[in-house]
Amino acid sequence: MEKIAIVGAGLVGSLEAILLAKKGYQVEVFERRPDMRFVELSAGRSINLALSDRGWKALKMAGVDEKIKETAIPMYGRIMHAVDGTLTSQPYGKDAQAIYSVSRGGLNQTLMNIADQYENVNFHFNKTCEDIDLNTNELQFTDSETNQTNKFKADRIFGTDGAFSAVRLRLQKTPRFDFSQTYLKHGYKELSIPPNEDGTHKIDKNALHIWPRGEFMMIALPNMDGSFTCTLFFPFEGKNSFASLQSKEDVLHFFNETFPDAVGLMPDLVNDYFENPTSPLVTVKCEPWNYEDKIILMGDASHAIVPFYGQGMNSGFEDCSVFEEMSADFDGDWTKLFADFARERKPNGDAIADLAIQNFIEMRDKVADESFLLRKKIEKKLYSKYPDKWMPLYSQVTFSHTPYSTALKQGKKQEAIMDQIMAKPEIETIWDSNEIEQEILSLI
Amino acid sequence: MEKIAIVGAGLVGSLEAILLAKKGYQVEVFERRPDMRFVELSAGRSINLALSDRGWKALKMAGVDEKIKETAIPMYGRIMHAVDGTLTSQPYGKDAQAIYSVSRGGLNQTLMNIADQYENVNFHFNKTCEDIDLNTNELQFTDSETNQTNKFKADRIFGTDGAFSAVRLRLQKTPRFDFSQTYLKHGYKELSIPPNEDGTHKIDKNALHIWPRGEFMMIALPNMDGSFTCTLFFPFEGKNSFASLQSKEDVLHFFNETFPDAVGLMPDLVNDYFENPTSPLVTVKCEPWNYEDKIILMGDASHAIVPFYGQGMNSGFEDCSVFEEMSADFDGDWTKLFADFARERKPNGDAIADLAIQNFIEMRDKVADESFLLRKKIEKKLYSKYPDKWMPLYSQVTFSHTPYSTALKQGKKQEAIMDQIMAKPEIETIWDSNEIEQEILSLI
Repeated sequence: MEKIAIVGAGLVGSLEAILLAKKGYQVEVFERRPDMRFVELSAGRSINLALSDRGWKALKMAGVDEKIKETAIPMYGRIMHAVDGTLTSQPYGKDAQAIYSVSRGGLNQTLMNIADQYENVNFHFNKTCEDIDLNTNELQFTDSETNQTNKFKADRIFGTDGAFSAVRLRLQKTPRFDFSQTYLKHGYKELSIPPNEDGTHKIDKNALHIWPRGEFMMIALPNMDGSFTCTLFFPFEGKNSFASLQSKEDVLHFFNETFPDAVGLMPDLVNDYFENPTSPLVTVKCEPWNYEDKIILMGDASHAIVPFYGQGMNSGFEDCSVFEEMSADFDGDWTKLFADFARERKPNGDAIADLAIQNFIEMRDKVADESFLLRKKIEKKLYSKYPDKWMPLYSQVTFSHTPYSTALKQGKKQEAIMDQIMAKPEIETIWDSNEIEQEILSLI
Repeated sequence: MEKIAIVGAGLVGSLEAILLAKKGYQVEVFERRPDMRFVELSAGRSINLALSDRGWKALKMAGVDEKIKETAIPMYGRIMHAVDGTLTSQPYGKDAQAIYSVSRGGLNQTLMNIADQYENVNFHFNKTCEDIDLNTNELQFTDSETNQTNKFKADRIFGTDGAFSAVRLRLQKTPRFDFSQTYLKHGYKELSIPPNEDGTHKIDKNALHIWPRGEFMMIALPNMDGSFTCTLFFPFEGKNSFASLQSKEDVLHFFNETFPDAVGLMPDLVNDYFENPTSPLVTVKCEPWNYEDKIILMGDASHAIVPFYGQGMNSGFEDCSVFEEMSADFDGDWTKLFADFARERKPNGDAIADLAIQNFIEMRDKVADESFLLRKKIEKKLYSKYPDKWMPLYSQVTFSHTPYSTALKQGKKQEAIMDQIMAKPEIETIWDSNEIEQEILSLI
């Protein structure tokens, strides 16, 4: 029987294990860290994530969507918090459309538990991938507890070991492998809004909260226990930056000035700020995503992106669903399957990487802008009247399965049209007119 | 005394050794390969290179320009070889302006010999840099002959160890280090045109010869012994590619069809083709180029570029001359000097990388085009009448010390103007008119 090694038991690796197990392959999953179901892992990764349509589709293929939905909190829109406390809200899509706040750890554990139910899946923890012999497809691991070296010869290797992938690192040494890692000047730090005493949420739990402040921002996503996990996206250096906030007083002063309506909800602010790590934001691109018929990269290993479109996990899960669809009429030609998958997905990985960086500017700056909100209102009207002609970019990315690269292209076209419309005199008064509607339709 | 380690005794490392020795520092140069003055090194790197103004300036600072000029062959322009044997020539600059064909090995050995004359310079060969302790700035080397490990603690480390730099590899593991390596779909292979029996050159030795063929090309640069080194730049895969030429017959057939006027000059063609390596063409970008006051990257280590602008060595030598200029009023603040140098040079390294890729299309395709040659003629006229208003991009890059990033910007502006002019009806007849001249001047 075909022996498949999955390197990395994170979200994508665990989901892919289920999908491959369903096909009857022998699946061995190797994970560098201990089993997160028994050992609490240290911080440094986001606590919750926004799951949307692309992710749900892949979870459904694995038959785990219903189970996950039980602990997912729908967020129907953004709520923007101005410095003076004014709240503005903006729906993400139509009516019941939502993105869902899920616990990273909870989701990962659920996927591992389901994978574990298959007899043809085995998890191996504390196994650091040290090297791969590309001739024999033999993996070399060191056990971080015993320091012993193990080898495993796989027919296929799925590299789902994240932004700093050991599998990709091996491929980086092969001839003509393109690779880039690019860091933002901003980092992030997680903070917390605890629940009320009765376990309810302190602010609207069915929304993603944003405190947009131009060069930086804070966001908050709800958790099932009534708390919110806040994330401060902030420059590493400069006037307002992680480097500039050194003392308790600095932090309190800055938060009181900048996020006054949040401070009262964050009793552990100072402690969280100094205890929790400051993490970088990296974009990784590479090519090719496969090595012959032996290795395929998925998820952050081939396309680590910044979190501002909420598509990191979703794009990784979409790798799994696209791979599943492409192997529907599989005839045993792994070289073709891996090469086709790599060629098909690579432009989409690059596109969502670029979209995610663009969306940072939108979230931290534009959402506080009236003209931006009007633009969204016009687009929403178009979408509701002419859903076949105009789907806003956000909806294409979040609530459709349109390839990211197509969405990026269409989004640019729409942006050019809307730039033209928004430049019209008195657009604030005439935006809802038939004339404007007709003009947009003529421009499409 | 300040102890400086230079990692890499290639062109840039050897030149920098001289410049630092002149200031009185203790300079230790570590080189992975054996001493090329005693051991012939295997092929895989270009045999000759085009030295131009930026390179000469740095060589002059080191006092070695006169010595180098003795064995440098001026090339005053390009000679294009059409399939039917027609030759077209195009001067590179004004009158006596030329780029110079020099032997890579000869130049490197000359620089090493001159550096060796300083008592405060020591070369260490067969020393592979394995690691750097960034806290102590201690380098770890393995001797490739004895397999022994050596350590050396440096006050400063200059990483001049090329496109696959071990020093940069260490920096890639530091937080938030941006890095990219990008390969062209083309590779290159060196071939040869031997001298006539009397030692003279078989074709015009004072020119760079190009056989432009659209998707690919061959070039030839003269050597002092009467030979030419030809380089075939060719796709790795596809209809006409390294992959498609498998047999002697394939090679002969292809060259007879494609480079008929060259085949007769290349008696060793088939042997060279199968014996010489096929090498990839990589572009490397990274940031930052320095690590605190400890490490600085120069040359290919921080900006490996493709060879189509003849600026790989020249940009590396310019690193040395700019560093020299910036340390003119040095006050001992290495942190500032390294950071200033890195900040100043990084955009220029990126710009020449982009220009070099652009120039590949110009060389292999456009130089065979009449409209392109007319464009160059118009630009030449402007340059000769209004040298302060219009210096062609090629001249800015090759015959000036304008920062590459400025040249790139100005070149784009000029291109937009020339696009407008070349679109005029009957431009072939009216190009020399006063009207056109005035129009261009009004557009500048």
